[in-house]
Formats: sequence, C-alpha cells, structure tokens
Amino acid sequence: MSIVTEDPIVNLDVFEKYESEVRGYSRSFPTVFTKTKGYKLWDTNDNEYIDFFAGAGTLNYGHNNEAMKKLLIEYIENDFITHSLDMATEARGNFLRKFNEIILEPRQLDYKIMFPGPTGTNAVESALKLARKVKKRTNIMSFTNAFHGMTIGSLAITGNASKRAGAGIPLTNSVSMPFDQYISTQASLELIEKYLADDSSGVDLPAAIILETVQGEGGINAASKEWLQGIEKIARKFDILLIVDDIQAGCGRTGTFFSFEYAGIKPDIVTLSKSLGGYGLPMAITLFNRDLDIWEPGEHNGTFRGNNLAFIAATEALSYWENDDFSNDIDKNAQLMHDFTAKVVKEYPALNAESRGRGMMQGVACHVDGIAEEICAEAFERGLLMETSGPKDEVFKFLPPLIIDEAGLKTGFAIIEDSIEAVLEKR
Amino acid sequence: MSIVTEDPIVNLDVFEKYESEVRGYSRSFPTVFTKTKGYKLWDTNDNEYIDFFAGAGTLNYGHNNEAMKKLLIEYIENDFITHSLDMATEARGNFLRKFNEIILEPRQLDYKIMFPGPTGTNAVESALKLARKVKKRTNIMSFTNAFHGMTIGSLAITGNASKRAGAGIPLTNSVSMPFDQYISTQASLELIEKYLADDSSGVDLPAAIILETVQGEGGINAASKEWLQGIEKIARKFDILLIVDDIQAGCGRTGTFFSFEYAGIKPDIVTLSKSLGGYGLPMAITLFNRDLDIWEPGEHNGTFRGNNLAFIAATEALSYWENDDFSNDIDKNAQLMHDFTAKVVKEYPALNAESRGRGMMQGVACHVDGIAEEICAEAFERGLLMETSGPKDEVFKFLPPLIIDEAGLKTGFAIIEDSIEAVLEKR
Amino acid sequence: MSIVTEDPIVNLDVFEKYESEVRGYSRSFPTVFTKTKGYKLWDTNDNEYIDFFAGAGTLNYGHNNEAMKKLLIEYIENDFITHSLDMATEARGNFLRKFNEIILEPRQLDYKIMFPGPTGTNAVESALKLARKVKKRTNIMSFTNAFHGMTIGSLAITGNASKRAGAGIPLTNSVSMPFDQYISTQASLELIEKYLADDSSGVDLPAAIILETVQGEGGINAASKEWLQGIEKIARKFDILLIVDDIQAGCGRTGTFFSFEYAGIKPDIVTLSKSLGGYGLPMAITLFNRDLDIWEPGEHNGTFRGNNLAFIAATEALSYWENDDFSNDIDKNAQLMHDFTAKVVKEYPALNAESRGRGMMQGVACHVDGIAEEICAEAFERGLLMETSGPKDEVFKFLPPLIIDEAGLKTGFAIIEDSIEAVLEKR
Amino acid sequence: MSIVTEDPIVNLDVFEKYESEVRGYSRSFPTVFTKTKGYKLWDTNDNEYIDFFAGAGTLNYGHNNEAMKKLLIEYIENDFITHSLDMATEARGNFLRKFNEIILEPRQLDYKIMFPGPTGTNAVESALKLARKVKKRTNIMSFTNAFHGMTIGSLAITGNASKRAGAGIPLTNSVSMPFDQYISTQASLELIEKYLADDSSGVDLPAAIILETVQGEGGINAASKEWLQGIEKIARKFDILLIVDDIQAGCGRTGTFFSFEYAGIKPDIVTLSKSLGGYGLPMAITLFNRDLDIWEPGEHNGTFRGNNLAFIAATEALSYWENDDFSNDIDKNAQLMHDFTAKVVKEYPALNAESRGRGMMQGVACHVDGIAEEICAEAFERGLLMETSGPKDEVFKFLPPLIIDEAGLKTGFAIIEDSIEAVLEKR
Repeated sequence: MSIVTEDPIVNLDVFEKYESEVRGYSRSFPTVFTKTKGYKLWDTNDNEYIDFFAGAGTLNYGHNNEAMKKLLIEYIENDFITHSLDMATEARGNFLRKFNEIILEPRQLDYKIMFPGPTGTNAVESALKLARKVKKRTNIMSFTNAFHGMTIGSLAITGNASKRAGAGIPLTNSVSMPFDQYISTQASLELIEKYLADDSSGVDLPAAIILETVQGEGGINAASKEWLQGIEKIARKFDILLIVDDIQAGCGRTGTFFSFEYAGIKPDIVTLSKSLGGYGLPMAITLFNRDLDIWEPGEHNGTFRGNNLAFIAATEALSYWENDDFSNDIDKNAQLMHDFTAKVVKEYPALNAESRGRGMMQGVACHVDGIAEEICAEAFERGLLMETSGPKDEVFKFLPPLIIDEAGLKTGFAIIEDSIEAVLEKR
Repeated sequence: MSIVTEDPIVNLDVFEKYESEVRGYSRSFPTVFTKTKGYKLWDTNDNEYIDFFAGAGTLNYGHNNEAMKKLLIEYIENDFITHSLDMATEARGNFLRKFNEIILEPRQLDYKIMFPGPTGTNAVESALKLARKVKKRTNIMSFTNAFHGMTIGSLAITGNASKRAGAGIPLTNSVSMPFDQYISTQASLELIEKYLADDSSGVDLPAAIILETVQGEGGINAASKEWLQGIEKIARKFDILLIVDDIQAGCGRTGTFFSFEYAGIKPDIVTLSKSLGGYGLPMAITLFNRDLDIWEPGEHNGTFRGNNLAFIAATEALSYWENDDFSNDIDKNAQLMHDFTAKVVKEYPALNAESRGRGMMQGVACHVDGIAEEICAEAFERGLLMETSGPKDEVFKFLPPLIIDEAGLKTGFAIIEDSIEAVLEKR
Repeated sequence: MSIVTEDPIVNLDVFEKYESEVRGYSRSFPTVFTKTKGYKLWDTNDNEYIDFFAGAGTLNYGHNNEAMKKLLIEYIENDFITHSLDMATEARGNFLRKFNEIILEPRQLDYKIMFPGPTGTNAVESALKLARKVKKRTNIMSFTNAFHGMTIGSLAITGNASKRAGAGIPLTNSVSMPFDQYISTQASLELIEKYLADDSSGVDLPAAIILETVQGEGGINAASKEWLQGIEKIARKFDILLIVDDIQAGCGRTGTFFSFEYAGIKPDIVTLSKSLGGYGLPMAITLFNRDLDIWEPGEHNGTFRGNNLAFIAATEALSYWENDDFSNDIDKNAQLMHDFTAKVVKEYPALNAESRGRGMMQGVACHVDGIAEEICAEAFERGLLMETSGPKDEVFKFLPPLIIDEAGLKTGFAIIEDSIEAVLEKR
Repeated sequence: MSIVTEDPIVNLDVFEKYESEVRGYSRSFPTVFTKTKGYKLWDTNDNEYIDFFAGAGTLNYGHNNEAMKKLLIEYIENDFITHSLDMATEARGNFLRKFNEIILEPRQLDYKIMFPGPTGTNAVESALKLARKVKKRTNIMSFTNAFHGMTIGSLAITGNASKRAGAGIPLTNSVSMPFDQYISTQASLELIEKYLADDSSGVDLPAAIILETVQGEGGINAASKEWLQGIEKIARKFDILLIVDDIQAGCGRTGTFFSFEYAGIKPDIVTLSKSLGGYGLPMAITLFNRDLDIWEPGEHNGTFRGNNLAFIAATEALSYWENDDFSNDIDKNAQLMHDFTAKVVKEYPALNAESRGRGMMQGVACHVDGIAEEICAEAFERGLLMETSGPKDEVFKFLPPLIIDEAGLKTGFAIIEDSIEAVLEKR
C-alpha cells in the first residue's frame, strides 16, 4: 500500500482533525476505504462491502471497470494529453463523434454538445444561462424535492431547505411547482397550466422548466409518462424550454440511456454528468437543440473542461449502448429490485412503507421517523453501502452499479432484510 | 494511436460539427493535440509546441509529470478506489495529512480543509457561502478585473462584462471596488475605507473581501505588498473576512506556495484548484480558519469531491514544497521572464507596452488595439501556445509550467520576438 | 369656475399633449370632470354620472361628504397646521385616540398605529419590512391575482404580469400561492400546508402571508371564511405573520370596518388606506400587534405622513362606526347588489357570467372576451362610472360609495341592463 | 379648538401609547403643534416657533399660504371634485397647462408629465421603472449619501445603512459611486468614467444615473457645476439616462425652479414632490423627455394620483415663477444664510465646523460628535425648529420657508448662536 501512504495507517482521526465539518459520507460510512472492483469495496481493515450506492449514481459501470482501466493506463503510459481546457484533442474529438453516433443519432436527437466544466452543477448552471439567454426571461420553473446542485444558480432551483439556507442570500429567479404525485398527476399539471395561462398568477413566464424524471435526492420520486408528456406539452404551449437534468437518472440508470426516453419526450436541453465519465472521473456535458446554440465563444468557460482521462473512459462506456443487451440486463435487475421492494413493503408492515422508483433507481419509503437511517446504519455494519434520501431521509434507496449480477443483488437484499429485522427488534 | 481513436483521423471538423459555439481555445489554437510532456505538446500532425499557457495555470508541474504518472498507473493498476464522494479513503487521508504537514504547519496556518467539488468555481462558491453564513451578511466585496468563475455566485464577483451578461439575470449581493493601481494604491485603499467607515455610503458592510493577488484573467495585474496589507488591515478593522482566491496564482506560480506569502498576510479563507491536482486532474479545496468551520454536515456537497486520482497526484506534488529548491528555481525563471518583458517593452516601442506581473505570471500589456491577439496567433504558427488576457485582450501573457528550464524559456522568448516583428511588419 | 381655471376650457387635448401615456382612467372615462357630491359627478359639459367606481374604493363615504367638508373648511380657515411630517399635532393625536377608541378597542385589537406615508403601497412596503425584520426571513407568501401596489416591494407580491413587467428587474423574495377557489378551497390550503411542512419543497419559509379578503383588482374574488381561517391556522402553525391588506376591502366596504371580521381571524399586521382618509385625501396606516413594534425611530419615514387635512376627515369618518347603523345600511345595499348580479347572470346567458364578491364589492364575471369592457364603455355613455377588473378585464364591478341609497343603486342597475342589452345587440 | 378635538387635551402620551416606535420628529420636537402661518408654528401651550425646517423642504411657500388657502376653501365650498385617481379634471388639466407654460416652456424643456402617486418615493420608483424599461438594463447608478425614499426600489439607491437594513432583504440592481467631493470632483468623475469604459470593471452598465444636486438628508452636500456637467457628459457618452431627483432641492430651494438650472444641464428624467403641492399637500410628478414616454396605459398606477386640492395649490404656487422676483428674494436670503454659516464657522472654532450648501439649503457641519444634535435640541427649547442631517447627524441645517423675511432669518440666527453658546458652555 506504499503508493497511497508512506505509512499504511490513515484512520478516521485524520479526517476529523483536518477536514471540515461539512464532510458527510465519511460519517455515514465510518471507515477508510482502499480498494474497489465492480460492485464491491474494501476498507483498510479488509472488510468487504457491497455497493448499493455507486457514488450516488456515478458508478453505473461499476468500480474500476476493466476495459476502461486498460485504456486509461495505456493512455497515461503513452503520454497522451491529460489536461486540455477546451482545446481540440483526439480524446475529446473521438468522444464527440462516438457520442453522436451511438447515442444521439439513433435517437434522432440533433443536439450540440457543450463541455461546461466537469461537475453536474456546472452543467445545470450552463443550461440555465443558455435558457435565459435564448428566451430573454429570468424565471426558471423547478419542482418540489428537486436537487440540481450547490452553486447559487443551481441551488435556487433545489428544494432542500437546509441546503438552500446554506446560500446565505435569498435564492431568486425561480419558482417551485408540485412534482408529479406531490398532489396528484392531474392536479400538478392543471395548477402549472393555470398559473401559466393566467396573466395575473404572480408566476412570471419562465425561460425553462427543469426536471429530473426520477428525483434521486428528493426521495426516489419517479415521474409518470403521463406527467412528463403533460409537462412537455405545457412547455410547448407556452414557448418554454424543457430541460431534463439527467445527471443521476441518465446514463442507463432507468434502463435506457436517457431517462426520458420511456416517455417519448424530447427535451430542448439535457444535462449529463456522474456516470457519463464511465470510471467515476469528473465530466459533464450539456446537450441542446442545434438552434439554441447562440453562445458566444468563451461566454461560459472553466478550467477542467478538458479532462481527457474522463473522455477516454466515457468513450469506452458508450460501447455498452451499441446494442440492447445492457438495457435488457438493467431491466432484469430492475425487476428483481422491484420484487424486493414489494416484498419489504408487504412483509414489514411496521415500516409503514411504500415502494418508490423506476429502473435501477428504487427505494422504500418508510413513514416511521428515523427508521430508514437506522436500517442504513445496520446495513453498513453488515457490509452494505446504502444511503437514505427524501426530505426527512425517509427512503432507503438502492442505487447499485448497473453491472451488478443477480448474486450481488440477492446478497444485498439479504443484508437489508437482516438489517430491517435488527432495527425492528431494537425499537 | 488506436487507443484514442479507432481511426486516427480526428480533425477540427468534428468539433465544429458537434461541439457548441461556446468552445474557445480550439479556436485560439486551431489544431488537434495528442501528446504532451513537460512544457511541450504535439498535435496530430506531429507539430511541436512550447507551452506558455500551461492549462491557464493548471500545469505548474508540467504535463504528465513522471513521478505522478508512475503513481497514477500503479494506483489504477492496483484497483485502489477511484471515485469516493467524500467518503474516507487512504488517498484522501494521506493528502490531508501531507497538506497539513508540508504546507500549512510550516506556514503556521491552522486551516481546516474542505473539498467543495473539483473546480475553482466550486471552491469560490463554498467560500462565499461560508463567509455569508459566518457573518450573517449578504454582500461580498470584489475588485475590478476580477475573475472567480462562471456559476452564478462566482460570476457575481467577476468583472468581465460579457461573461456577466451570460448570466441572464442581474448579478447581486456584490460590489466591485478598484483593484490596486486601478486608480492608485493609496486611492483604492482610501476609497474602500471611506465607503466602509461611512454609514451612508450605500455600500453594505460585506461578509468578505475576495481578491486575487495577481489577476490572471484580468490582465496580469499584480497587487503590491502595500495594497494587500492595507486590504487586510481594512478587513480586520471592519470585521470582514478576507478571502484570497489563489486558484491561478497559488501552488507556486508566484514563487511561494501561496501567492499571498510575500505580503505577510493571513487570509481567513483561501481557495485552491488548477495546479493543486498536480497532473491537471480536477480538484479543488477551500481552506479556512478553524473557528470558521461552522458548516453542517453535507450543507455543501457534490459528486466529484472524491477524485482519488487527483489526490494521489496532488500529494506527490507536495513533495516539491518540502524544501526551497523549487521556489528558488521559480525565482530564477521569474527573473528571466522579467528581463524579457522589460526588453520587449524597451525594444518594441511600437507596442506602446508595459510589463505586468509577478513570479512566473507575467505579461506585456500593449496599448495598441488588437496587437496582442495578433502576436499570440503568430506565436502559435511558430510553435508557441500563449494567450491574451485583460478586458481588451491587451496583454500577451506568459504562464509556462514552473518546471520549464532556461532553454525552454529562451526558445519561447525567441518565438515571441519573431512574432512581434512579423506582426509589426504586417501592420 | 374661475377658481379652477382662468379660462373655463380644459379639454381632453390638454391631457394628451402634456400628460404621460401612462394615464389610464382618463381613457376609460373620456371627459373632464368638475364637480361631485355623494354618489354623483358632473363633467364640464354638465353631464351627470352615477358613481359605481368610488375612486377604486376610496370614496366609501361619498364625494365631498358634508360633515367632513365643514370641518375641513373650518380647519383651513383657522390656520391649523396642514403639513407636519410625523410631528405631534392635535389632528394626528385625536385621530390616534379615536381610532383606538372606536375601531380597535371594541374589536379587542391591541394594535400599534404607524403612519407609513399616505398611499397604500407605502403601507404595504412598511408591513413587509416589519415582517421581515421581526422574523428575520426574506420570503413573503402572496396569492394569485393579488394587487398590493406599484413600488418594487409591493409589486413583487402583485400578480398582474404586465404590471410586474413594468418593474424592469426580476421581482424577488416572494412566492405566489393559489388563492381561495383558484383551484379549490381545500386544495389551496392543502398545497400551502404541504409546501410549508415539507423541508424540501423549494418554498422558503416566509416571514409573512399577505392577502386581501376580497381581491378587488384581481377580479372581485371573495375568500371564504373557511379559507381565511385555514390560512390563519397555517400561519400560526408555522410561525408566520399574517398580513391583511385591507386597503380596498376595509373601511366598511364589506359591511364591517375590517373586512376580516366576518371570518373571526386576527391578523398580525393590517394595512389601511383609500377610504381611511374619509374625503379622498391621501392617508394610510399600518397596524400591528404591540409586540411586533420593534421599529427604530425613523427607520421608515416619508414626507407626507402628516397630512392633517386627511386626519380631520378620517377622524370624522370614524363617527360612522360608533354604532351598527352604517353596517346595517351596507348590508342592505349589498343584498340589493347581490340580487342584481344574480339577475344579470340568470337573464343574460349570453354573457356566460357568474356573480362575484361580498358586501358592497361585487361584480359580474363574463366569460366572453372583451364584453365586460364594452359594457362599461356603454354604461359610461349612459352616465355610469364603472370599471372592469380581473386578469382579462372579464369582470364589470360595482364599487359605489357605501352611502349610496336604493334609488341610486337602482338607477345604476338600470343603466347596466341597458348597456348589456346594447352590447349584446351590437355583437 | 373644538373642531380638532372634542376635548382640547391631546398630549404626547397619546402618541407614545398608540403610535409606533417608528415615529421620529415627535421625539426631536417634543410638543403638540396646533396652528401655523408663514414661517411660524404654535403648540397647544401657545409657544411660538420659528421654522427652519419647513417640513423637510415641503413648505417653500410657507405654512398655510394665504392665496392658496383662499382657493382651497373656495374649491371645497363649491364641491369641485376632490379625489379623481387619474381621471381628467379641470384642476389637473389646469395644472398641466400652467406647469408647461410657466415652468417647462421658458426653460425649453419638452417634458411629458406623469402623476406617479403623491409621494417622492412614488416618483422615484416610477423614474427607475421607466429608465429600466427604456434602456432594457437593470442597474442604476446612485451616489454616496443619497436619499431617494423608503420603498424597496428607492431604498436600493439610498445610502443610509440603518434605513437600508430596514429593508430586510438585500438591496440589488444598484451601485453607489462617490458623490462630488466625496473623494474629489475630478477623482469622482474619473473613477465613474473608468468603471464605465472598462468592460471588466464589474460595474454593469446602468440604465440611469440618479442624483440630487444638493443632498439634503445626506449632509447638505452641494454638487459643483463642474461635477454636474461632468456627470451629464458621462451619461451622454455611455448612453445612460440622467435622472435628477429634485424632490428636496427643486421648487426654488436653490434659487431657480429646478436645482439643476445653474449647471446648465438637461436631465432626461426629473422627479418633483414636497413643495410642488404648494400647501404641503401630497403630490408628486415625474417629468421626462417626450421620446421616453413608452409607458403602457396604467402600467404604473396608484390611488392618490388625483389629489385635486394639491393641484389647486400647486397651480397657484406656479405664480411665484412668472417673473424673477421670487428668485431674487431667495438669492438675498441665501446670501444672508451664507454669511451666517461663515460667521458660525469662524466664531465658534470649538465646533470644528465647515459651511455646506447652496441657495436656501445650507448648514453647518460640525466635526465634534453629537454636538449638532445638541444645538438643535437647544434651539427647539428657544423656539426654533431645525434638524440635523448627514451620516452622523453632524450637520445642523437651515431649510426655512423660502418666503421668510430678513427679520425671521435674523431671529432664527440669534437663537442658533444662543444655542451654540449654551451647548459649548455645558460641554
């Protein structure tokens, strides 16, 4: 282990002593991780963990994917360019070409591709800027329980109150509408349409509506086809751009490359990040209809738009999408997950629970205060990484790497059942 | 070249066809780059370029630094964890420990370290949030010609008008004061103090003053010791936090690790990114006095706070700072650069030029419209990457990797002189 | 007429030539008015008009009320102080004492009285400032179709899109919720409660909820008791201040002095203006619970807080409230108005209309584009002042002076019926 | 006194008991006023006061001016229309015609006239809205120590920190530049020009520059001709509208009707209120170049735009401007005031004072903490109303009615000298 630390002992004290109190996951998963592969991780004490967390959806292709790994090593060994801002490089050019060929063309999406900086919030900020520039309007419509990022522009369209309070300034130029099922599908659509049609509603005509088709941080709330189609229709009717933030739900998480494919809608702007980089390397893109590309050169920039290692891995990741095999595998896994959440809901009435989600982005919402967090803590003790989501952390959610196999899922499910039982017993 | 592209031909058409009009550097440097080493790059036509640009200050240790390269390959080969959000990992822990030991302790800086997301603008946004949270004030004082990032919070304290216009919304909760020498050192300090002392100035007491000690994008404007000390004094007097954005000028660019060391000031908050990651990999940290660490767990988060490849390279980069050798080398290079800019100013009066900068962040400001851009374009033709900065792109700036040698610098200087002569001849 | 004009001829050309295009009512009622009394006006051509408009609710006690008129003349003749800022004057002191004695005490309202400047929007702005100061929160919850004024603070909580657009800047720190019946009473209350109870709704906890019990400009939308009580309950539950903007619906317009009395609620803050001044003279007050009075001296000020002529008339107007006679008269008139709107709805199905309103603030909403405006124009031709309201000007509204008698109402009704018939015939 | 109070006893307890803590002048001048005439007031104890305050500049023509008084009584007696919103009335039409004839035409000002609501802040808000609408920009440039009003739009361009804090929200879309002499005339102009010429200054191009030619609340700071001309030149150069807020300094206060006449500048927009109404009645207008009149009908409105009593008095007040006599009288008084302030500065070195102001808007700035307030308090005891201004209340200011005679001024001056001596003795 000499390459990581001169001295093998890095323990949690180091983090407590030097790292800011803002750290989060090192509290939820209190150990020091060292190695990983596929859907497993190991800590410095050689404990093994199954990963139902996947870097909050960043590791759809598993940890340290072999094919990507080889290409990365070869790329590095050969001294190909690593950091390039937005200069033209072979790695970037190849990604552009392949992304168009494998992802966009077959889906008849004539999108231009923008590299807005390598994180999700960079992509979201660029999408909002472009929408406002195109429509010459300042307001953005977002939804209850939305999560779009931590920089001021993205935070203004994020629902979470404590994260919003972190801004230290009022968050403006946004309006939060009820997501699908927040009241009801129909009531949400009707309210939004009424607000927009009414010249006296007090809701300024937005430049764009931004949504996640499945709200990951907000509680694994999956929007119905009907609602998504309804929102698209409203956007068209009132000349509003539709932005799908596909940072967590995209890249195959729900079974198709884009999460919105199942509803048959065509957003004007799409943001991608997290699993886009394939290997967990920082990368993000913003996609938009060709006729929206009114950016001035350099109008939005950033230092790490040329993370070529990510381009190499991201390009390799596209090979998963050359035929339907991967989608079919995801569907099978999703069915197993669905069966399991249904079973949990049925067999543990004490959780007062309901199933949530779509594809391989599922969870169980427990209407018993604090119980989901306890279950996750128990699961960690038993070797499973799993986190909660939702406004009250009421959902324990399953976000395993998409490449997980049936055995992996079942081991995870067994740990969860044990954990539930342990928690219920203690209470 | 098969690992990068199935087919070796990636040409500029690919970028024009698929990438957004927002792309910038692929226009300034119109070729497709493939390999790099140290202070050199090569394009797909095997043309060689000397790098006086260094990823806008991200490649202080050169392209594909050998020591880091070996560690990266070893780390990847051994399947150590790559992506970890803000979970505890050996690589992160080791970085924390070493950064404290090599950088903070010797400089008697008792800073906590925050991982705010891997880009500069993430670090800046986190710094602003923390300052506002600590001081319970909303206003931030920044400076003319400042550049702090493209997300809404950072953009509000950035000077550039066209980038600001890209926001599409008014940028608020900030006030732009004259930087050192904008009027004069003394006049700047007096005006700021007068505004703050006056209860009727219309300038709301800020939570923080944020500054770059050398404004890179704004025109290579180097603040004097006197001004920096004056600003620190004002910050203390009015109970305002002092933030140094050391993203471009830090990590040795001016000769010391932090650019503010030479003025003997101690900022309350410091942002680092760009060369911090050592190898050009996305990474950023925010440093702040221990008593400011009032963050709630998870109050600011982000997906790519655990870019462990960057931690490995960043930790290795710290070895440059274990003794004074590297600083001394930088000083020598800086002197060569200084001599050269002085020579240019003197020998080419037609440029109507002046020297700018400090350390290895220098440039020549030409008071002839458009000439600096022409010189950069000529230099590119002759095999040198160099960019302009300043509100009117009036400065051609030298930002070579710090590890460049005298031969490299002299070759670059010769190209610049040739380019100047070519431009002057054409005009 | 020599006192008004040296030369009697002031015609509409004067207004077109010298007054801004922003003028409105001189277009709806295209004549030059000269004299008035009670519920009648006369123009320079001696045409007589019945007033169903009452200065948009400012002339509840009729034009040029005799008792007030005498006192005003006597006050002026005796050189009592006219303009006094917020110095103590007899007239102001007497108003304070009487307002407390006649209005507040009998209703067990222990409100402090603030003079915020003499217009409604001054009162609203002061209410918002106080609420934000008390609660240390920035957000204000208002409602669809609300109208609170034209200055930036008030405009941010006003629904009308074209008036909002007039701001020229984004209107911030406010959220617009569905008013009673916008969706349904229950759905409105449930949505608001859900938004507030949910820590991830994206709706920041407001300092205050501000509402009109009957929305005058927004379409004569009368809130039900159930809804008002529900809103008060929500405000209490979430520690939010409740502000009733009673500028148009207060001062007896709905039968009781305050419009909220019928619902049995007790707002924390109340704004009054329009008919408060009795004679149509500019005056406004802001009332609030004694324990909210944390203002610093002079923290909100204004030049015309001491319009003593208004204090004299306003104090006299309070005599209408010393017993129940006036309220009873209003109720009788309200019943006549109600019967008439019901009749119109029933007898003119071509209007596709519905009755709206409460007390002497009623109207007929016509779901036929443009017809309400045509009816008002016809009515003007026939000697009746009446205006439209609602987002599409779809309501013709009756807002006569409260002191109108049955004969006056019936003459007005007859003109309206003639006008409807004339319009329907033309179409 | 029966017309004011049934019972003659209104004492200060009434105000303490019922009126908000926000009250200010009833604390500075702790007595109950009852009658006034010209430049004198009397309280309920028959104490006489000389008025060097004039309703903060609202009573330029003196209290209860005889000519206006007669017209008001006649107007009321004859039941001419009192309240008319913005309907056409004889009184309004006559004012429009006369204002154009007596004020605008002779000065070659082709302004349209807008009635924005009857207070100064209404006029300022309307001016800002129009400027932003015309220029499609959001920023407004104002100045240190400016005072423009208490509603959110006006407060954002007001300098006073405690008043700004009263907003409870960040005040945005404005930038505060140094007023003339804040640094120096030349330095102010140069800084502003540099900020505007520099595309990277961080100061967004404003829609308008708004200024007071003499800052009344901000410390009787009189702008020089040179600075005013310089500002106008800058406005023209950068296509920015120039707004003069002439609410306090206009209507003859500095000797000419508009305060900006002496500098020979022509603002694009002018706001007037305070003394415009002649008799101290609420009234305000906004004037602007004919080609800026792009308002939509009703885009800005308000209940009290038709205060016809004010129109009658305001029209009569215009007669003061039919020839130069009044201007000449003001100049004579101004000279007496100037001589007196010079004498005070010279003869009372213990005040460490300097003269301030222009026309009949003058004062003495004392650089001894708290002394100006003590002098005003002493003066009140001796029968003189006078208030302080400036960020630290360091100026005692003279703002007598313009119609005051030499005897009145001298009596006032004698009281001030006595007060200064009393204060200096006590200290």
